[in-house]
Amino acid sequence: MTDTISREKFLNAVKFNADGLVPAIAQSCSTGAVLMMAWMTRHTLEETLATGHVTYWSRSRQKVWRKGESSGHVQRLVEAFVDCDGDTILLRVDQMGPACHTGAPTCFFRKLGE
Amino acid sequence: MTDTISREKFLNAVKFNADGLVPAIAQSCSTGAVLMMAWMTRHTLEETLATGHVTYWSRSRQKVWRKGESSGHVQRLVEAFVDCDGDTILLRVDQMGPACHTGAPTCFFRKLGE
Repeated sequence: MTDTISREKFLNAVKFNADGLVPAIAQSCSTGAVLMMAWMTRHTLEETLATGHVTYWSRSRQKVWRKGESSGHVQRLVEAFVDCDGDTILLRVDQMGPACHTGAPTCFFRKLGE
Repeated sequence: MTDTISREKFLNAVKFNADGLVPAIAQSCSTGAVLMMAWMTRHTLEETLATGHVTYWSRSRQKVWRKGESSGHVQRLVEAFVDCDGDTILLRVDQMGPACHTGAPTCFFRKLGE
């Protein structure tokens, strides 16, 4: 059901958008909760795979964003997937502390009521 | 931990990008698997919330994409969340059949090897 591919094939499978970015979804490997979605460049994706510490590209700050570098709420990479058309990445992570800058466990804490 | 908000507040919280789109992550509410990521316009988001049948905007075909309309592999909306900064939606869904057009249960079937 799952195709296991090499790092080279994985990197070649990823299609970055016109801005050189790809969306990456982080999911907790312990709870299964979807924690956040952020963006990566090829450089931050390579850094993430090489170091095992999830690193994004901050679009608002226009700089490399090593998740948890200041807060300590790092994400350790456990598994990485690329989708069928290569335009989204899914990271299964070990999340230290809350994922959200608000202190919530996940960024998706606002739920539509009935 | 979770803030429950009205449909009006939910729709107002969503920030669409310059193309009028917002990324929506679909997660199986039965297995917890992340199934796919696709894009919505305000119109398809409103249709999704009104009908309970998940409807995206196809960027490749530039048209409304009622998921499963031809394949039967529909997604019934169970819960909808918006993230802290309003630029990503998370849908917990009841997925009929495989989510992926390849026949895989999820679009994220390519996994980075050791």
